[in-house]
Amino acid sequence: MAHNTVVSAIHDAPPLTQILADFVSSHPSRGWTDAVEHEAHRTFLNWVGCAVGAAMHPAVSAALAAMQEFAPPDQASLLGRGTRVDMGSAALLNGISSHLFDFDDTHWKTLIHPAGPVASSILALAEKTGASGREVIDALVLGIDIACRIGCGMYPEHYDRGWHITGSTGAIGAAAACARLLKLDARHTAMALGIAASQPIGLREQFGTMTKAFHPGAAARAGLTAALMASHGYTSSPKALEAARGYMQVVSSRLDWDKVTEELGQRFEISSNTYKPFACGVVIHPSIDGCVQLREAGLRAEEIESVELRVHSLVLELTGKTSPKKGLEGKFSVYHGCAVGFVFGAAGETEFSDEVVNRADIASLRNRIRATPDDDLDETSADVTVVCKDGRRLHVFVEHAIGSYKLPMSDQHLESKFDDLVVPILGFGKAASLKSLCWSLASLNSVHELCEKARN
Amino acid sequence: MAHNTVVSAIHDAPPLTQILADFVSSHPSRGWTDAVEHEAHRTFLNWVGCAVGAAMHPAVSAALAAMQEFAPPDQASLLGRGTRVDMGSAALLNGISSHLFDFDDTHWKTLIHPAGPVASSILALAEKTGASGREVIDALVLGIDIACRIGCGMYPEHYDRGWHITGSTGAIGAAAACARLLKLDARHTAMALGIAASQPIGLREQFGTMTKAFHPGAAARAGLTAALMASHGYTSSPKALEAARGYMQVVSSRLDWDKVTEELGQRFEISSNTYKPFACGVVIHPSIDGCVQLREAGLRAEEIESVELRVHSLVLELTGKTSPKKGLEGKFSVYHGCAVGFVFGAAGETEFSDEVVNRADIASLRNRIRATPDDDLDETSADVTVVCKDGRRLHVFVEHAIGSYKLPMSDQHLESKFDDLVVPILGFGKAASLKSLCWSLASLNSVHELCEKARN
Repeated sequence: MAHNTVVSAIHDAPPLTQILADFVSSHPSRGWTDAVEHEAHRTFLNWVGCAVGAAMHPAVSAALAAMQEFAPPDQASLLGRGTRVDMGSAALLNGISSHLFDFDDTHWKTLIHPAGPVASSILALAEKTGASGREVIDALVLGIDIACRIGCGMYPEHYDRGWHITGSTGAIGAAAACARLLKLDARHTAMALGIAASQPIGLREQFGTMTKAFHPGAAARAGLTAALMASHGYTSSPKALEAARGYMQVVSSRLDWDKVTEELGQRFEISSNTYKPFACGVVIHPSIDGCVQLREAGLRAEEIESVELRVHSLVLELTGKTSPKKGLEGKFSVYHGCAVGFVFGAAGETEFSDEVVNRADIASLRNRIRATPDDDLDETSADVTVVCKDGRRLHVFVEHAIGSYKLPMSDQHLESKFDDLVVPILGFGKAASLKSLCWSLASLNSVHELCEKARN
Repeated sequence: MAHNTVVSAIHDAPPLTQILADFVSSHPSRGWTDAVEHEAHRTFLNWVGCAVGAAMHPAVSAALAAMQEFAPPDQASLLGRGTRVDMGSAALLNGISSHLFDFDDTHWKTLIHPAGPVASSILALAEKTGASGREVIDALVLGIDIACRIGCGMYPEHYDRGWHITGSTGAIGAAAACARLLKLDARHTAMALGIAASQPIGLREQFGTMTKAFHPGAAARAGLTAALMASHGYTSSPKALEAARGYMQVVSSRLDWDKVTEELGQRFEISSNTYKPFACGVVIHPSIDGCVQLREAGLRAEEIESVELRVHSLVLELTGKTSPKKGLEGKFSVYHGCAVGFVFGAAGETEFSDEVVNRADIASLRNRIRATPDDDLDETSADVTVVCKDGRRLHVFVEHAIGSYKLPMSDQHLESKFDDLVVPILGFGKAASLKSLCWSLASLNSVHELCEKARN
């Protein structure tokens, strides 16, 4: 994975976000000349005239018809909550929720988390339209294929540049999936892809904030909206993805067109999907896995004097926080991941809570871990050496972590993870029903019972 | 204005949008192996577990609270229509409508059309919250300032690369304006700017399709949503604009930080706003103006044998369509602009209708116009020579077109334009009331009467 060449430029950048926010929130009302004040009214008058003048244009009618499909506001379920909301909000909120714990699926070739955008959009749409489970699975496979294939054509440059590739490709995948669910023909599907292409979402700078999880949610809603607009005749460029000033050339400077289309319809990118046993970015997983393995071999955390960790430099670039203060920050600390691996033998959401991150014993152990970048190692590997208080040295080399493409989680392990997440929210009975309905999704007449079981 | 260096790459690009749309719409249901089918269910199960598990997270609560502000769905007016919709849809639809005729305002330094994103978001929000006209004008000036300043920091590279700068900066301007209207403090305003920064909208490839007008609308809705989410405690990076993997460095490779902040609070970018007398992109305006001037000097269209037009190469790059078939395409044809200038002495929305674009006399005149690129001319100029059937040669050089920054439209001319747009939709009485309310916006207690007069 290439190194981002603009990282150094940040040192030249003034704190613009803060400067502009201070200005907007504190500048006095009418703190300008009469000429500025008059120009504001000219701007407003001209804008009103333009908006009124075009009000009956077919584009407004098409967009309005699409927006009206989002009412009334009780169309779709929020998973794990009692509330039902409009399907656009459901797509957004379920997309946020599914990514918040950094526990969702990962397309290993591109680091895309494809279910967030795609499943969030189609479940909401299917609940409203009454689509069958078969149609939902078809849309899921195809939507994920589109997002990941486009990602393959731009990875790694697009990701290195700073795009959160899950959101930036996700809107297009969601649009494809929703277009399929709406049974749009090829021409209207192309329009849906095109409208979605104008909305790439997500910056890596947001990692560690709530906005990271906003990306798949916003992509889900954008894709759903694009498909609905296309279904009502809203037009876009039929070359929106590939044109010189289209999506791919605008958001990536290195492209491999063949990767997008090779073996289309024969190989499906969902086959490269992986699932996380640990609730954080995949780059920390080999390190955590190594610590868990040592614990399972009998090592107790109290015996540890210090830890020597060797990992690819990318691991430290992405997750090098040494002193996290909040749970979310803990997810970007390979030190924290190792510490909870040693202490708990697990790294689920609980181990990334504010409480655990601030525990004295965990902080102490974090501080005794020294990580060294070593680009001779693969990003998927980690080399962990523990120096014990009694002088023993214990070593483990993890070539591929559990949950990686080479060492997938079993169905049983996936079910355990599901139970850990769902039982505390919905209880045993509903969790068991919901799990069973998920496994049999392709044969369900509709998603309604599944959505009902997923509500609290 | 620099030339986009990637234009040639389009020749290598396969027709991806069409290939993928064909695939998504026609691939048979369950057209894959059992292993793929099983992986789809694993993906879905894992996604449901993640979404349920995080359902009660504060981020979901904050986003849900923001989404619930969009109900019930009769909060805000569609200008020029009878319908009221939720404020997010109103922001989207008024933003679309105001840009559809390519007749809205233009910040001449950056080619941003700032009112589309900014005014569309705040009028919808103000109608719901009952904000005063004074507050709306303050938000308008400040939101436009933010969008245009950020644009100044990235122009022209960002635009050259293919971003429709109106949408890509508009979400941030709209977020700033809505944050102001919601009276957010500096910290929450920064969060709003950050959430918006993750949603740059708009590709130049969409020019000539309905999706061009979608860009300011989607930006308006994205900015409004960002401000509402921030107001409910949704967090983003406080360096989202300037960081190495933040907005500006991701969407532009050349940046001028100083341009963003110079004379902040002293000079207001709305002072650089201009208004179009012609319903098309500004680059054609000098050419149209020249043709209108020749007509006003007595030239009749029937006398024209041929026309020699010299313009900057950018004009032909952006608006070089020689044989438009639809009204929207006519807006990207300098030939059509000149033809209607000669025939009608005007280039309003009527002159860019499908009907006029397809008129035989107009097509004939278009075909007799020869345009030559000449980069010794400024982009704001045009040199028009008419060869008459009787052998006369008539010449006009337009240094700055009417409506440009150097030769602004008068208030009276703006009012005529407003009437031309609004009277056919709302009738004389409402149009007059609406116009008067626009001019007195700063002194209105609320925007409710104005919105009522703007409804059909």
